[in-house]
Amino acid sequence: MAEIVAIKPAVAEGPIVARLDMGVLRLTLANPPANALSLAVMEALTAELDRARDDKSIRVVILSSSERVFCAGHDLKEMTAHRADADRGRAFFEKTFAACAVLMQAIVRLPKPVIAEVDGLATAAGLQLVASCDLAIASHEATFCTPGVNIGLFCSTPMVALSRNVSRKHAMEMLLTGETIDAATAKEFGLVNRVVPREYLNQIVTKYAQTIASKSSLVVKTGKEAFYEQAEMGLADAYAYTGRVMVENMLARDAEEGIGAFIGKRKPEWPEE
Amino acid sequence: MAEIVAIKPAVAEGPIVARLDMGVLRLTLANPPANALSLAVMEALTAELDRARDDKSIRVVILSSSERVFCAGHDLKEMTAHRADADRGRAFFEKTFAACAVLMQAIVRLPKPVIAEVDGLATAAGLQLVASCDLAIASHEATFCTPGVNIGLFCSTPMVALSRNVSRKHAMEMLLTGETIDAATAKEFGLVNRVVPREYLNQIVTKYAQTIASKSSLVVKTGKEAFYEQAEMGLADAYAYTGRVMVENMLARDAEEGIGAFIGKRKPEWPEE
Amino acid sequence: MAEIVAIKPAVAEGPIVARLDMGVLRLTLANPPANALSLAVMEALTAELDRARDDKSIRVVILSSSERVFCAGHDLKEMTAHRADADRGRAFFEKTFAACAVLMQAIVRLPKPVIAEVDGLATAAGLQLVASCDLAIASHEATFCTPGVNIGLFCSTPMVALSRNVSRKHAMEMLLTGETIDAATAKEFGLVNRVVPREYLNQIVTKYAQTIASKSSLVVKTGKEAFYEQAEMGLADAYAYTGRVMVENMLARDAEEGIGAFIGKRKPEWPEE
Repeated sequence: MAEIVAIKPAVAEGPIVARLDMGVLRLTLANPPANALSLAVMEALTAELDRARDDKSIRVVILSSSERVFCAGHDLKEMTAHRADADRGRAFFEKTFAACAVLMQAIVRLPKPVIAEVDGLATAAGLQLVASCDLAIASHEATFCTPGVNIGLFCSTPMVALSRNVSRKHAMEMLLTGETIDAATAKEFGLVNRVVPREYLNQIVTKYAQTIASKSSLVVKTGKEAFYEQAEMGLADAYAYTGRVMVENMLARDAEEGIGAFIGKRKPEWPEE
Repeated sequence: MAEIVAIKPAVAEGPIVARLDMGVLRLTLANPPANALSLAVMEALTAELDRARDDKSIRVVILSSSERVFCAGHDLKEMTAHRADADRGRAFFEKTFAACAVLMQAIVRLPKPVIAEVDGLATAAGLQLVASCDLAIASHEATFCTPGVNIGLFCSTPMVALSRNVSRKHAMEMLLTGETIDAATAKEFGLVNRVVPREYLNQIVTKYAQTIASKSSLVVKTGKEAFYEQAEMGLADAYAYTGRVMVENMLARDAEEGIGAFIGKRKPEWPEE
Repeated sequence: MAEIVAIKPAVAEGPIVARLDMGVLRLTLANPPANALSLAVMEALTAELDRARDDKSIRVVILSSSERVFCAGHDLKEMTAHRADADRGRAFFEKTFAACAVLMQAIVRLPKPVIAEVDGLATAAGLQLVASCDLAIASHEATFCTPGVNIGLFCSTPMVALSRNVSRKHAMEMLLTGETIDAATAKEFGLVNRVVPREYLNQIVTKYAQTIASKSSLVVKTGKEAFYEQAEMGLADAYAYTGRVMVENMLARDAEEGIGAFIGKRKPEWPEE
């Protein structure tokens, strides 16, 4: 596990710690004690994703946490402080939820896969981060909830991501009761892909990310983009659209190399990008 | 269990028995022997839901049954009798399916959660009731089917609700074969949230409803409405819409009280509504 | 099992072997060794589906394979050969993906149920066939994957069908890693309805198909068509549309006979179609 330890920062340098290793960018939420998504944290995370978008050396992103709480959602104290504003906080709340929408869509729109590595509690907008990622791997100790209903603020933005991951009855149960589900239930619901022992979580997610990083990033970008686009279309439109995507993909050098390698029973060498 | 027994009617007073206790309205289908959804039953149930909409003392609705059959769907004898009409029943059938659509959407559009309590068979439009509710809790003896295909009348309206609860292959299997599934399978498919022993069903559902009834009803209303609205939108629109919902929710007294109580580590007291 | 053996061809007569028995058309992919979907195979399969559409003696279609590989997807050698064309293959690739879209939608639009019988590997467009069918039954030995990402050609068209069968996280895991899942996982994901022992697969699927073939084909056609139509609508539109479908269904002789038989406790006799 030497190389994995090596990418960890010696000291935390801000609310988001970024470490790149072998094409995998690990973004670690480091805003103790609960990794709350203050406006500054959301903007910092979005900025990291924007940088990752244009950096060819980054092929996969992992979103993890430095704390036992993966992420407790919005910073309620920060928001409450703005109730003293002349507009009772309206402008700040608008800014907060706009930043949240930008962040969550930055994950979905990033042309590179984003994997949530969840150890501990993911709640409200923290759960929304997990649901917004393309993949999610959790430890057995991870837990998930949308408890807004208990504090007078329904998890209406988290449910956008949640309800695109799990069935209606499951989403409604979480949203209306605010109860916490464990990792096994989250897997059963379809919110996380895998549940693994805590002591191997980091290692397994890193390995998983490296596997995906070994694919052609042009092809992964093509596919991820097409996935979310076609998901919002009717069947006929989805086929017309993805058919065009496939033709362009076939004409790219990556498909020529990949299919040629497959037929020739050799390992593909993806073109420089 | 004293208070639960107390809300049961001494004698049935019509096709729908309504009892209110601690903010929870229990609507019991009482149209023996199969709780068929005759036009009169559908209209009575819709009327109860309409009343519940405007009654501030009602915070959660339970939909249950007085019979071992939860609900056998439309009243086939009533419909068949209208084949003798001059128009071969067309006007009555139109009235029936219009009333059905109004009823099912009244459940979805009601700004208060509706929980199905299912003990015994829920079939065709009876299954549609369960699928239309926000949550569903069943006894181990509950069973579910869409048997229309066996009697020459495909369950085309029940499938609207069914297919918004379970995956396509599961829905198609139920619809094309008309076979009955048990409660465990219904849970696996995502049609019901929980399966519990029959002798505790009433008690568990009541407790569950009371838990939800203890939340702010303004917040629950906000969230339920937003849930079904955003479910029909693309991602960008869903975030734009729910972002506005969150800002208004933050500015409501309920969020101020709930978040204040959370930060102050005290129990919230929801404003009078 | 005599009659089931009898419908198998003595010798393969083309890329698609068609056998009709008791209203069930069995279409067997017979393009060894991997049942690749060359342009000719896709066109032949579509032609069989078109014929099935208009043949009143055909009530249900089974899609099976003659090989241990159910279907390995597009014919990569055929596509690669066309890279030598003046346009580097563009016209042929366009033709291929257009034929693929026509085939997959022919399954969905066919007014008769299509059941995939999967024994062995279903990969890429082969998996897409399974996902496009109304129902799928697999042997314990069946496996499933979308490995395009490994050969530089993301499974962007297969994902249209896949993502309409399984949850987003599950679809993304298959698409981004290209890993193979077993039959039990495919059932858990919702991609197949049942997993049965290989030695009974053919028998079970045939029996299942015959059960569906015993229903009114007018009613099955009505329901299948309405299912996929309403799946793309919002709730209010879906109810308005299916309400009209139900009224017409009620006025058809099949409903009159089926409901009459049900009330009279006798077996229905569906009208000649």
